[in-house]
Amino acid sequence: MENKFMLGKFNIAIIGYGYWGPNLVRNFSGLDNCQVAYVCDQRVEQLALVAKHHPSIATTSDYQHVLADTSVNAVAIATPVSTHFTLAMQALAAGKHVWIEKPLTTTSQQASLLIEEAKRRKLILFVDHTFVYTPAVRRIKQLIDLNELGDIYYYDSTRVNLGLFQSDVSVLWDLAVHDLAIMDYLLGLQPSAVSATGIAHVPRAPENMAYLTLFFDRKSPPLIAHVHVNWLSPIKIRRTLIGGSQKMIVYDDLDATEKIKLYDKGIMVANDTESQYQRRVGYRTGDMIAPQLLMTEALHVAAAHFVGCCQTGETPITDGNAGLRVICILEAASESLSRNGYPINL
Amino acid sequence: MENKFMLGKFNIAIIGYGYWGPNLVRNFSGLDNCQVAYVCDQRVEQLALVAKHHPSIATTSDYQHVLADTSVNAVAIATPVSTHFTLAMQALAAGKHVWIEKPLTTTSQQASLLIEEAKRRKLILFVDHTFVYTPAVRRIKQLIDLNELGDIYYYDSTRVNLGLFQSDVSVLWDLAVHDLAIMDYLLGLQPSAVSATGIAHVPRAPENMAYLTLFFDRKSPPLIAHVHVNWLSPIKIRRTLIGGSQKMIVYDDLDATEKIKLYDKGIMVANDTESQYQRRVGYRTGDMIAPQLLMTEALHVAAAHFVGCCQTGETPITDGNAGLRVICILEAASESLSRNGYPINL
Amino acid sequence: MENKFMLGKFNIAIIGYGYWGPNLVRNFSGLDNCQVAYVCDQRVEQLALVAKHHPSIATTSDYQHVLADTSVNAVAIATPVSTHFTLAMQALAAGKHVWIEKPLTTTSQQASLLIEEAKRRKLILFVDHTFVYTPAVRRIKQLIDLNELGDIYYYDSTRVNLGLFQSDVSVLWDLAVHDLAIMDYLLGLQPSAVSATGIAHVPRAPENMAYLTLFFDRKSPPLIAHVHVNWLSPIKIRRTLIGGSQKMIVYDDLDATEKIKLYDKGIMVANDTESQYQRRVGYRTGDMIAPQLLMTEALHVAAAHFVGCCQTGETPITDGNAGLRVICILEAASESLSRNGYPINL
Amino acid sequence: MENKFMLGKFNIAIIGYGYWGPNLVRNFSGLDNCQVAYVCDQRVEQLALVAKHHPSIATTSDYQHVLADTSVNAVAIATPVSTHFTLAMQALAAGKHVWIEKPLTTTSQQASLLIEEAKRRKLILFVDHTFVYTPAVRRIKQLIDLNELGDIYYYDSTRVNLGLFQSDVSVLWDLAVHDLAIMDYLLGLQPSAVSATGIAHVPRAPENMAYLTLFFDRKSPPLIAHVHVNWLSPIKIRRTLIGGSQKMIVYDDLDATEKIKLYDKGIMVANDTESQYQRRVGYRTGDMIAPQLLMTEALHVAAAHFVGCCQTGETPITDGNAGLRVICILEAASESLSRNGYPINL
Repeated sequence: MENKFMLGKFNIAIIGYGYWGPNLVRNFSGLDNCQVAYVCDQRVEQLALVAKHHPSIATTSDYQHVLADTSVNAVAIATPVSTHFTLAMQALAAGKHVWIEKPLTTTSQQASLLIEEAKRRKLILFVDHTFVYTPAVRRIKQLIDLNELGDIYYYDSTRVNLGLFQSDVSVLWDLAVHDLAIMDYLLGLQPSAVSATGIAHVPRAPENMAYLTLFFDRKSPPLIAHVHVNWLSPIKIRRTLIGGSQKMIVYDDLDATEKIKLYDKGIMVANDTESQYQRRVGYRTGDMIAPQLLMTEALHVAAAHFVGCCQTGETPITDGNAGLRVICILEAASESLSRNGYPINL
Repeated sequence: MENKFMLGKFNIAIIGYGYWGPNLVRNFSGLDNCQVAYVCDQRVEQLALVAKHHPSIATTSDYQHVLADTSVNAVAIATPVSTHFTLAMQALAAGKHVWIEKPLTTTSQQASLLIEEAKRRKLILFVDHTFVYTPAVRRIKQLIDLNELGDIYYYDSTRVNLGLFQSDVSVLWDLAVHDLAIMDYLLGLQPSAVSATGIAHVPRAPENMAYLTLFFDRKSPPLIAHVHVNWLSPIKIRRTLIGGSQKMIVYDDLDATEKIKLYDKGIMVANDTESQYQRRVGYRTGDMIAPQLLMTEALHVAAAHFVGCCQTGETPITDGNAGLRVICILEAASESLSRNGYPINL
Repeated sequence: MENKFMLGKFNIAIIGYGYWGPNLVRNFSGLDNCQVAYVCDQRVEQLALVAKHHPSIATTSDYQHVLADTSVNAVAIATPVSTHFTLAMQALAAGKHVWIEKPLTTTSQQASLLIEEAKRRKLILFVDHTFVYTPAVRRIKQLIDLNELGDIYYYDSTRVNLGLFQSDVSVLWDLAVHDLAIMDYLLGLQPSAVSATGIAHVPRAPENMAYLTLFFDRKSPPLIAHVHVNWLSPIKIRRTLIGGSQKMIVYDDLDATEKIKLYDKGIMVANDTESQYQRRVGYRTGDMIAPQLLMTEALHVAAAHFVGCCQTGETPITDGNAGLRVICILEAASESLSRNGYPINL
Repeated sequence: MENKFMLGKFNIAIIGYGYWGPNLVRNFSGLDNCQVAYVCDQRVEQLALVAKHHPSIATTSDYQHVLADTSVNAVAIATPVSTHFTLAMQALAAGKHVWIEKPLTTTSQQASLLIEEAKRRKLILFVDHTFVYTPAVRRIKQLIDLNELGDIYYYDSTRVNLGLFQSDVSVLWDLAVHDLAIMDYLLGLQPSAVSATGIAHVPRAPENMAYLTLFFDRKSPPLIAHVHVNWLSPIKIRRTLIGGSQKMIVYDDLDATEKIKLYDKGIMVANDTESQYQRRVGYRTGDMIAPQLLMTEALHVAAAHFVGCCQTGETPITDGNAGLRVICILEAASESLSRNGYPINL
């Protein structure tokens, strides 16, 4: 069987060919040194689609068959989240590198076990926090690292639209996971506690609206983060405000040409304790700059990064630990949400 | 002294001529049956401004002088909030109707005492929840009353901009008070608990960012409200989403011509408990309508309503009880905020 | 050779596989009763792309081979405009129905010859004025036909962006053709004269900016149309204003969710000749409605319409005559442009 | 009579107290070294308004009385345009400096006579091209003078809204005058010819829509300008695109916070005549910058500039000659419009 795959190419199998699978096939196929060896799905009609559009890719409904093929270097798991752990653990046991769609697993315990197993076997465990690989988020990271913003004061994200109501996970696990992954990458700081609130409008269904506040131990200056997610909004909003002591950013992912706006605005606080409070705070406003961004597709960058890490042993930016950190926050947030905002320490 | 006031006119004295005072003078002067008899302020330079622009209005720095003038029917108090209670109580004791800028008082106890005193003396106690009198909010109220939205699912407001940092009150008491007042008017429901989080970026200063979730006892369908206020945002946002079972509203107060957009969008939930969850939720989208709004100035409407109530004894829409309800929420929110979101029952 | 094509299917050959060719392949392939039999292109690297992505489609660089295949019912010509006439005439001579990308030909004489030839042979000649088949334009047509706008007062379009500078045609023939095609469909009126101005910023190159006014003989009420096209704009604008005696439309093709906004606005003109002019004109403003639009792809609708017309003999909406009418305006506009706006009668 | 005016102050009389008069009173009153001595209007109800809001300003319906008062240094004429010439000529004859609202006069001949008279008497003749004094336009001028844009390629303005239909002048003379004044200031170049088109939708009324192209003799690189004005638009647009060889500007006067956006975008033209045309044009895109603008009121700046010029003899930026240049274009445009775009040399 292996013979049909080109020599020297990195072979990956895509597990699950639903909404996201075609994007994985397209992007991994688009890499020079990589080919998609298999698409595996239990639904024959989905495999028929693969056969039609990608006749050179082998299809199978038998996951064990994929794992038994020694020419397969890695699997990319794009199945319902409840199956992530079992599928990934089997793949690691079979010596495959693993790419998993977000969220990594359904519990932090599962995530820890995967991390441990990957470490022991010296395999790459990668979680697809796609937004981390967008030109916009990478540019914001650059601006933060260059200290353009000064100290970060807050991170505030709104991610709302109409649908798609999920049956197995709440809006926190479906949408807020994006913001937590971006924050994990940009801030490089672990929150110390979380308070979350939310509501389910559909009986016997997970929450479709949620609000999440993250607290951090850093005191000088203090930092706060907030995420607002909603599946039941009449309009689509994808907007993040990042406040800093020097400058502030508005990141609007729906703006076709000016996703990032860097505002030279802020407050100036006089240290003079004698003066009136009102006179202690001054406002500063300057130019706004919308930096030119590359047009690279995030998933292409992520796929190339993953393959590179598999080949060199380098740790990916979004490794299992990044996935775990996000899961821990989601677990705490879910508990807080069920207790109407009661703060949960992390 | 009284003789100089026109017979039959309703005489009002404006107490405090700072940022808002000139608007009060202009609007009360603009009413047919009303005249501004006095402006009272302790700062002589402010009184000089009155004398220059409104030579026909008497000025004084002596509040007792105003209260002693029996031709004065009412006072409008636009002074720092910490002085509201004392000034209002004295005015009621002197038999004057009272208009107070928001927030009504600094504590719910003070608010209750004012309400009681006004009731006992059969005087009008009015809190200037100005937004309640805007054409936009009144139109939303109309749409809700006509059941255009169906059951209300959520109320979600964002009110952020750069400045003005207040020294004596937090952003909750300065900005969130607007949203709580609007909600009090639109929903006509009391929240049962509140969870709030926030942060102060200026040392020894009140919080300049806050997030507030309101819980309601109503279960079928459940209702939630959230308010996001921030004095440290690079951009100004004044946007409220109101979700209903039939339609949803986006109210953008910064949109010059289309402040309200009514979306014929929503979800349809099948009651069939047998069916798959995913199939239980359907999405519905239709036309969007931006209703034509009047251009009336809110403060003009409020002033006319106040004078009318004083003359007829009618209870104002934003009476002392409305002010008290808002204060109660702000007190609970402040406590919750100091405890990182710990839910406080109301 | 013919045997490999399914019996009963309508067979089309795509001529030219550059920017637009892949869209034609995808859309004609997506029709139930149609299949793409050939892609023909003189560039072997383009044919290689077809072989890779559509292995079931025959490729050839020999146009005569395509024409000689009697199983081919129609050709879709997506080559440079200078080749349209010759290729189309040969196809008609070979008994094929013809689909041609806009603009139909480089001269009105060529267009007339094609129309005549198609008529004589009872073949369909179709020009791909794609915008005519968009949900937005079709909805506007519906609103006009329902007399929602009243009498049309003006049509005013802006279509500007950065690039793509064409070498063989001016911005008039590249971009304004879209607006003229839409207008031809919506207004159903022939202009009587045209005045155009423009400029070429690149030496020895066609005009990259142009302004076009169309005059109409209709006097009561008078009608005017204007088109502004520009390849050298820092921002992309695709906005059309349509003024009517009852309502007015703003059609913004870049608005993802509200492409059409119908404004209940206008003027009221008193017929009283005695009254002052200023008092003769009143302004009326009412609600704005953004009607829900289908998400259908225009090219899919156009392809289905073309195939249907080929099979039934029905005249397409965008037949050769529609193409000719647009070409006539473009010819006159080009002449006017070269004479700095000198009006040219049609 | 003169005694009542403060010694040393520059005394100005406002002639005409309609829409714009109150703004003139407020701004001239707001200057340190200036006072409004008179407001003159033939309508007693307008004078009553002055008496109410500005009791210290003398009012009169007798223009000759104002001219006879030797303490009056200047008049500001804000009356219907048909009266400008006569009122201004009388004022100059009386030795007064003259400020006139735009457009300067109804004919270029009148404008020339005023210029000549002012020159002979060494008096200032100022036309209120207000936009020239806005922070936005002044900043654009600065950017052009610093050569940030490189060579100017085009100037393209859209100025449309619903109303106000004028009875005595067409939309060209009412709205396009603003753009011509801004262009006169920014470009510093005289157009060589003009082509204009337009239409009147109200019987026996001036044109309410017009399109205006200006041609310039400069050939390398060529320059073009276009103005689109409309009183019958469902939405308000105030947007100007300025294209340069290096950068391009979008000036949106309705954007509250980012009126000017400077785009680092353009084309690169290879001089290689051998290469294919398509390869000769490259596209360049970089950052966008929205420079911080002052919040100064334009009329305040203009008023201060006028008074300063009167006192020092300096020639104003918007002197009579600037007014004349604009009038000449409007005259030619009116003629071209009546001949459907026939180009008129200047």
